[in-house]
Amino acid sequence: MIYLDNAASTQIHSDVLDFMLPYLKEQYGNPSSIHRYGRLSRKAIEKARKQIAFLINADPSEIFITSGGTESNNTALRGILTKYSSGQIITSSIEHDAILEPCKKLSQDGFDVLYLSVDKFGMVDPSDLKNQISEKTRIVSIMFGNNEIGTIQPILEIAKICHENDVIFHTDAVQAVGKVPIDVNELGVDLLSISSHKIYGPKGIGALYVKKGISLNPMILGGGQEHGLRSGTENVANIVGFGKACDLAKTNLSENISQMKKLRDVLVQNVLSEISQVTVNGHPEYHLPNNSHFTFLGVNGEDLIIKLDEYGIAASTGSACSVHTQKASHVLQAMGFSHEQITGSLRLTTGIFNDQKEIEQTVEILKKVIEELRSVSPFKEKYSFSKN
Amino acid sequence: MIYLDNAASTQIHSDVLDFMLPYLKEQYGNPSSIHRYGRLSRKAIEKARKQIAFLINADPSEIFITSGGTESNNTALRGILTKYSSGQIITSSIEHDAILEPCKKLSQDGFDVLYLSVDKFGMVDPSDLKNQISEKTRIVSIMFGNNEIGTIQPILEIAKICHENDVIFHTDAVQAVGKVPIDVNELGVDLLSISSHKIYGPKGIGALYVKKGISLNPMILGGGQEHGLRSGTENVANIVGFGKACDLAKTNLSENISQMKKLRDVLVQNVLSEISQVTVNGHPEYHLPNNSHFTFLGVNGEDLIIKLDEYGIAASTGSACSVHTQKASHVLQAMGFSHEQITGSLRLTTGIFNDQKEIEQTVEILKKVIEELRSVSPFKEKYSFSKN
Repeated sequence: MIYLDNAASTQIHSDVLDFMLPYLKEQYGNPSSIHRYGRLSRKAIEKARKQIAFLINADPSEIFITSGGTESNNTALRGILTKYSSGQIITSSIEHDAILEPCKKLSQDGFDVLYLSVDKFGMVDPSDLKNQISEKTRIVSIMFGNNEIGTIQPILEIAKICHENDVIFHTDAVQAVGKVPIDVNELGVDLLSISSHKIYGPKGIGALYVKKGISLNPMILGGGQEHGLRSGTENVANIVGFGKACDLAKTNLSENISQMKKLRDVLVQNVLSEISQVTVNGHPEYHLPNNSHFTFLGVNGEDLIIKLDEYGIAASTGSACSVHTQKASHVLQAMGFSHEQITGSLRLTTGIFNDQKEIEQTVEILKKVIEELRSVSPFKEKYSFSKN
Repeated sequence: MIYLDNAASTQIHSDVLDFMLPYLKEQYGNPSSIHRYGRLSRKAIEKARKQIAFLINADPSEIFITSGGTESNNTALRGILTKYSSGQIITSSIEHDAILEPCKKLSQDGFDVLYLSVDKFGMVDPSDLKNQISEKTRIVSIMFGNNEIGTIQPILEIAKICHENDVIFHTDAVQAVGKVPIDVNELGVDLLSISSHKIYGPKGIGALYVKKGISLNPMILGGGQEHGLRSGTENVANIVGFGKACDLAKTNLSENISQMKKLRDVLVQNVLSEISQVTVNGHPEYHLPNNSHFTFLGVNGEDLIIKLDEYGIAASTGSACSVHTQKASHVLQAMGFSHEQITGSLRLTTGIFNDQKEIEQTVEILKKVIEELRSVSPFKEKYSFSKN
């Protein structure tokens, strides 16, 4: 199999698993226990917290561990907004459902939600934010890099506008961490969500960066773990794995970025040269190094990934998380894509375990599959597809 | 080391880890992806869901996976109560903080919380519930077996009273699952919380049983996983491990109960015959098979577990989760214990990996340590401790 769905989830790095195994075997203490089993678990968590913090240049005390990116996003929004009974949230129209769905709920609870529009590249315009932000605004949440089309938002500029207006700024950086150098202090973000399984760590674990001085209302209450922000016995093995994944992401950051980008670039170039009537989506410059997103005219994206799967290639139409809802991509809609363009979408996301041979094979197979699908496409006449 | 803190956390069973490993290695697909990596993960989750359901005789569609017992408890309470703007919650004064803390918050949000008292054995009186329940009551939450003193509540009777009054009944069964045969249909509970790491499964995973026909408002919103009740990419490996742990717990239930109980009984008998001025706490009959809870007069429980730790025994003063708050056990307070009795508490909880030799060694060491501590106790004169 050729796995090109690294934005959906990644393979756990073998070094990460090696670090996890003792905590899945003999180191099974509850970190809240005061005997040595407990103390060893506690120590392991605090080491991991440092590794997570180091990746984004935060202080370990600013890292709160959660069960993943979705919980981090929910914790950020609800943690701030439950302090108020009304007010405004500003977000973008291309956020992940883990932001959009909590926003929908908060809107039902009496908050105003303003969705900033994006241009055809999926880019937010900071001047829109500048015009809309006011003393009513409680929080701004704009994602760092988009999970479907890979566009990277002007986070530094957005953070600046927020701070000029004394508004808290959250960014869902689930797709960007480990793919872009991130320094929370330089960027000036207040809250930032991270997920482990997008960076070669285990699933079911993530973190929320909370800038010193900002307090959040907790969502999950109980034994008071994570300084009261997130109760529940800590998932020690996964935390240790997440810490190691962050450590590897930090150590190998530029090397990983180069590799993912190189493969992505080869992929895009070969697709463009080998296949006709295809567009490459997302911002041409501000783009996650591992993301490629295409629209093949006259092809149904779902048919395409089922065919690719038969040929041994794991791909995606867009967000893995939208499968449950079966709805058309809200990201592409926001970018002004027609229904036909949305239907013909394919996302291929490279990772550190891919190599150039896989990419070349993928393009060969893709060319063949697209030809097959176009030969039976209802749009065959309309677009007069040439054999590539 | 002799590990007698199995109520805090348990060692992962090697069969459980064997089942998890493929999902920590080559089966890393996001269950929401439609390619074969995704489909294999989805299939594994649904198999685990069946195993979890089977343990408590539920239907798989009634099992919702969470990040653990604490999240399950929070989801149950908030899931029901956010449907109302006011009303009453009835719970007990000896619940885990994962119930008490959400109740405190709900009380701040305008709900009335009634805490049923317990007798000296830590037992709720169902007639109290009968007297207090009314059309104002939105939910009753009474734990199945207590984490500190092991008392098992009259769940069948409590469920009956709730249903006679059309009130939803939740039970925190985190300590009882795998230690008591539980049939949700026979018992008539509506909502039941389970934790994986208490039954030889991995940490960071649990479930909430939700009886068919009951709907809950979700707490964590996003991609719509777990039929919308709990969004976020599923922790596949831990879910698979949890499923296997449930499967083993079901298959070996009576054997496990006999073993834990036999060791616990030996422990209690030997302590009583070897050490003076000690009481055994909790209900003499309705008691979790793995729990023993003692009060040693004139001894500080924290000193005791630190000493025991030095001698290689992992023990607890009570709930592991109360370490963060450093407060005296609310359970023992509710049972009418004096401050001195609370201070002298020790909890030893047996598990399937303990053997009789360990128990005998433990009592020998315990006898020695108690003597040491009593020889320097400020209560030495008051109680004129005899050498045992």
